[in-house]
Amino acid sequence: MNPCILVQPVEASADVAVADRLQVVDAAAPQVSVLDLGVTRGDGIFEVFGVINGHVQAVVPHLRRLAVSAAMLDLPELDLEAIREAVVRVAGMAEQVPEFSVKVVVTRGVEGAGAATCWVIAFRSSDDFAAERITGVRAVLLDRGYPHDIASRAPWLLAGAKTLSYAVNKAALREAARRGADDAIFTSSDGYVLEGPSANLVARFGNRILTPAPAQGILRGTAQGAAFEYFAEAGYAVGEVLLRVEQLAEADALWLTSSGRMLVPVRELDGRPVPVDRELTDAANAALLARTE
Amino acid sequence: MNPCILVQPVEASADVAVADRLQVVDAAAPQVSVLDLGVTRGDGIFEVFGVINGHVQAVVPHLRRLAVSAAMLDLPELDLEAIREAVVRVAGMAEQVPEFSVKVVVTRGVEGAGAATCWVIAFRSSDDFAAERITGVRAVLLDRGYPHDIASRAPWLLAGAKTLSYAVNKAALREAARRGADDAIFTSSDGYVLEGPSANLVARFGNRILTPAPAQGILRGTAQGAAFEYFAEAGYAVGEVLLRVEQLAEADALWLTSSGRMLVPVRELDGRPVPVDRELTDAANAALLARTE
Repeated sequence: MNPCILVQPVEASADVAVADRLQVVDAAAPQVSVLDLGVTRGDGIFEVFGVINGHVQAVVPHLRRLAVSAAMLDLPELDLEAIREAVVRVAGMAEQVPEFSVKVVVTRGVEGAGAATCWVIAFRSSDDFAAERITGVRAVLLDRGYPHDIASRAPWLLAGAKTLSYAVNKAALREAARRGADDAIFTSSDGYVLEGPSANLVARFGNRILTPAPAQGILRGTAQGAAFEYFAEAGYAVGEVLLRVEQLAEADALWLTSSGRMLVPVRELDGRPVPVDRELTDAANAALLARTE
Repeated sequence: MNPCILVQPVEASADVAVADRLQVVDAAAPQVSVLDLGVTRGDGIFEVFGVINGHVQAVVPHLRRLAVSAAMLDLPELDLEAIREAVVRVAGMAEQVPEFSVKVVVTRGVEGAGAATCWVIAFRSSDDFAAERITGVRAVLLDRGYPHDIASRAPWLLAGAKTLSYAVNKAALREAARRGADDAIFTSSDGYVLEGPSANLVARFGNRILTPAPAQGILRGTAQGAAFEYFAEAGYAVGEVLLRVEQLAEADALWLTSSGRMLVPVRELDGRPVPVDRELTDAANAALLARTE
């Protein structure tokens, strides 16, 4: 049901052929040690690749981002070729539904062992993103607690790294649900719009389509990047900017983007309706879903 | 080497006898699913009990704090009696060295399964706390990024919950090492002293012994609590306060406290020497190490 491959060793320094690093395992059986820092400290990183009609999307941007996260956490340099091979192989082993995902997890490994743990697994999201692209979602703004320039001032806070320490992201989603919404959008303590717990925010203002600049400790979005290529070709001016919370009220459209979502319209923000650009949403999603890489 | 007991089910709602919930497992073999939210999202909580000369310390305060963390994360209510039994049993199974620790981990469980995962394991810290009580440690101040009143304003940030999402705490320790120090002390973005990544801070000013108030999103320290009982009996005025960073320069002694450390003197802060109160440190540690509960 969830094809899974362990990549061991995953360190670039290990002189082992790619084929000898990959081991197909049973995801239904326990595979992780209770002493693994991934589970005892959320001390690791991950990436989620979208797989559309059998094609793994944005492989290079995801691997690049994984390497950035690894560097931010002082993890060893990873053998990205082995990880890429595991991603492709797991995608091929999965039930070939039109849309599913492949997740790569890298942890610092068992405490004291000095070797990272890595597995790659295919799964189907419990969210119905295909429906959300049509119906849109209700979102609420939640304070992330940090000023927008925290990443440069305090890199040890790991803002902008895709770590396994996502308890806050999950708590934000529960808070959103308590407020009758489907998703959250984080804001900085000094009034800037940041990102969602598992998505980037994209906003259209007339002919301009903008996303909060990654330098604010935001994850650089792979789906957002692909969407911006589409928008640029379609004649929009795209850009990464500092976006004030109050500017959102003037947006002609808001979307959440991620490798599973593509572009999901935000139809309501903090209980107030947000315009939905049906035509552009559908056109952009059609383009994103037609990608073969 | 690391006796380990799974507590399954751990939910208070499950009508299962305590003995039937506990299962001794091999900690050297994998016990955690790659689909467990504990490892995929750092979505869980933990507690570490000190065991001194065979006596598990501060059982009730630790279990109370575990229950508080569970509530903050909207985890199910836990069977604390089963967890307590597992803690005592694991402590009894461990090699009886003078000081070791028992850790309880509770995760939200396998995604979609709707049952929490819990294990209890004995281990010996890789830190030589016995030596540090004598030699002291060098610490650096690191910005935690949040204002001191974040916990009441934004509970979804889980400040003050002991979650598995400790990647930032570990990154702070690496930053401290880069700066030539042994440990870190977090400060709020508005200039208050908070806590260490795995310890509380205690400061003596003359006859007053103070610790930053837990309402600032700080974990209430069990060892700090025990130390304050000792200090109060020894005639000091103890209190939980808002402590400005600049006040640290006037302290007559600083300590880091945790269930493994007891009281470890901070002998240097950001490269400047801090007075060490040898007599009080030794007396308080002797009292803490003599506890039978």
